Amino acid sequence: MPIITLTTDFGLKDHFAGAVKGAIYSEMADAKIVDISHNVSPFHITEAAYIIQNAYRNFPKGTVHVIGIDSEQNPENKHIAVKVEGHYFVCANNGIMSMITRTIVPEELVEINIHDRIKTNFTELDVFVQVACHIARGGTLGVIGKPIKEIKAITGIMPVINSDQKQIIGNVIYVDNYGNVITNITRRLFDDVGKGRTFIIQARRAHFKKIHERYSDAINFDIEKTKREEDGKKIALFNSSGYLELAIYKSNPSTVGSASTLFGLDYRDTVSITFE
Amino acid sequence: MPIITLTTDFGLKDHFAGAVKGAIYSEMADAKIVDISHNVSPFHITEAAYIIQNAYRNFPKGTVHVIGIDSEQNPENKHIAVKVEGHYFVCANNGIMSMITRTIVPEELVEINIHDRIKTNFTELDVFVQVACHIARGGTLGVIGKPIKEIKAITGIMPVINSDQKQIIGNVIYVDNYGNVITNITRRLFDDVGKGRTFIIQARRAHFKKIHERYSDAINFDIEKTKREEDGKKIALFNSSGYLELAIYKSNPSTVGSASTLFGLDYRDTVSITFE
Amino acid sequence: MPIITLTTDFGLKDHFAGAVKGAIYSEMADAKIVDISHNVSPFHITEAAYIIQNAYRNFPKGTVHVIGIDSEQNPENKHIAVKVEGHYFVCANNGIMSMITRTIVPEELVEINIHDRIKTNFTELDVFVQVACHIARGGTLGVIGKPIKEIKAITGIMPVINSDQKQIIGNVIYVDNYGNVITNITRRLFDDVGKGRTFIIQARRAHFKKIHERYSDAINFDIEKTKREEDGKKIALFNSSGYLELAIYKSNPSTVGSASTLFGLDYRDTVSITFE
Repeated sequence: MPIITLTTDFGLKDHFAGAVKGAIYSEMADAKIVDISHNVSPFHITEAAYIIQNAYRNFPKGTVHVIGIDSEQNPENKHIAVKVEGHYFVCANNGIMSMITRTIVPEELVEINIHDRIKTNFTELDVFVQVACHIARGGTLGVIGKPIKEIKAITGIMPVINSDQKQIIGNVIYVDNYGNVITNITRRLFDDVGKGRTFIIQARRAHFKKIHERYSDAINFDIEKTKREEDGKKIALFNSSGYLELAIYKSNPSTVGSASTLFGLDYRDTVSITFE
Repeated sequence: MPIITLTTDFGLKDHFAGAVKGAIYSEMADAKIVDISHNVSPFHITEAAYIIQNAYRNFPKGTVHVIGIDSEQNPENKHIAVKVEGHYFVCANNGIMSMITRTIVPEELVEINIHDRIKTNFTELDVFVQVACHIARGGTLGVIGKPIKEIKAITGIMPVINSDQKQIIGNVIYVDNYGNVITNITRRLFDDVGKGRTFIIQARRAHFKKIHERYSDAINFDIEKTKREEDGKKIALFNSSGYLELAIYKSNPSTVGSASTLFGLDYRDTVSITFE
Repeated sequence: MPIITLTTDFGLKDHFAGAVKGAIYSEMADAKIVDISHNVSPFHITEAAYIIQNAYRNFPKGTVHVIGIDSEQNPENKHIAVKVEGHYFVCANNGIMSMITRTIVPEELVEINIHDRIKTNFTELDVFVQVACHIARGGTLGVIGKPIKEIKAITGIMPVINSDQKQIIGNVIYVDNYGNVITNITRRLFDDVGKGRTFIIQARRAHFKKIHERYSDAINFDIEKTKREEDGKKIALFNSSGYLELAIYKSNPSTVGSASTLFGLDYRDTVSITFE
């Protein structure tokens, strides 16, 4: 039985997530439901896209991903079911899918049209559960929607490359649980533009001359513990999702501080890389 | 195999929820456990009742709902197992069931009496797990308790109707993850008292002359995007649970504000509807 | 199929927990995954040890417990898989296992050596998932690691007993969701040192002359409700995990206050018991 994942801005206190799970189990007694996150900031499409993008590929193909962010249907915001790389997504056509997959022409794509049977102000419960269970049971997209050509495209903030190819100007796209700061500069972009040149990364109060592979590279383990100069344990690395991340080794935002608090960096702030 | 749901004030950091799940799986290897919420404010019966009330009906009949709020047994607070509308509830007889079901004589009702075998200060782990698994395995309530006549009744704050039937004075009973404010005024009460008359809803700094069906009704999509006057996007509607809700379309309590913060409304505050 | 539990400092917003679950299901379609906690304070080994210690025994034997705290491999921090009391643990050899089990020579113990095949900065996803699924499928530890003699031992803050056996000086090791304060003084230590003598517990602004069995012992139910003198409802008791806990009956840290806020007690603060 395929997995149904949930990513929403419901939070974890209210009845919303419980109600949706109850409705899924009522439809499909043997459903397998996995929470990806219910703590997306309300209506924050960029945040949701970052979270789903980095989670979904780890699930088996055939998984149905329900996205409950800004999902109420309105004249500018229809509902869609999408198949990409063997994964199904059920969400509003508010641009989020284009941020997750960076493609606007997926393998399969329908605009959901079961709404004439359903009057609701709790979309995830009344519409998305039906659609997700239909797909999980092996139903085809054509039964719950009409094919459309492409998904609504929006682009998040994208890094800019100077015309002389000497600088990448990127932005913070996410701050994680450790207060580490994730930028929109990918390893691929860095390699393509940098071509092996030496560089300096500048981010408000911090700068970095090296990009590491692991968080613990912030520490020189060859030096005896008491003699280490750890430079505040700050480090730049490409994270497991391929993005340039500025981190503090063993940070804790609410005690010793974190990259976000110590460097003074928040969502949308600028991080630049200047090549020699 | 029936589902066992958990609604508690354990929070999500401590070992409590994990311990209870471990104990359930030790009793019933094939149990299906679903969290409704562990983030009820400590000992807040009204909040718990609102959350469970709006979640439980979505689950299949036969589901066993464990309520771990103010559950320690004491001379004023016995434990009960209840069957209502085909759903089972295991909880303390502290009045919460009367708030969830608005009935005090359920289909089946026993006072749990397995305590002589169990000495505990972790009720959910030691008593409720045993009872929930017994019920989930198809056991009868008579085996784990003695029949009693009725559950302890408490009533939450209830709306008041003026003697001339011109005004409903209700209260805020819940503030949700979006900062939307839910009142104890139901669609049914509104219809019964209002009988189609025009009305004005007053809630501290806000007033509303219309009740909508969907959150996005706050926006007039017929007007071009840049020319819309959206009146702060505030809206009154009956939510998916049938209660009058005051909302801000696309609110975020920690950034742009929400109905709760912008209207200055919190738990127990007054919301009135005056009819013409 | 054995259960795989997760205890991490991932938090519940980011993609980390979702990604790990997806990877487990991709390895083992019929896996049963249970979250113990993802809200451990970042890199806080003591907190994690307290949480796991009080949760794991409730799970069936054979359960595999994945601990994702401070888990990146480095020269001082290898990865281990351990069998203790029929339970398996997969974690970094950073001392946490010695705090959970209070033993350094477990039933089975290997240092994980599958890293030559895996380059990662997301240990839980890339290494621990492989190991946990291997064990859950019934694989032996020898296949994924090489036997070592003992685990790294660290001791948390331990209570001190005065040379005249008249005083136990303990410390706060955890503050729970209710703001109750848990000390490192066990019932067993109390009995061994106290030998039935009368005593006084002192903790900054509070003192206690009795240790109770249940939270509701803070209330004298023999006295009519309106006439009760409840002494702020403060109480000392041995909690379900066997530790001396200082509590406020029906506390709420964010409204009426809690033992932590009212007594002014936080992690590592001193709690002493003086015997007559």
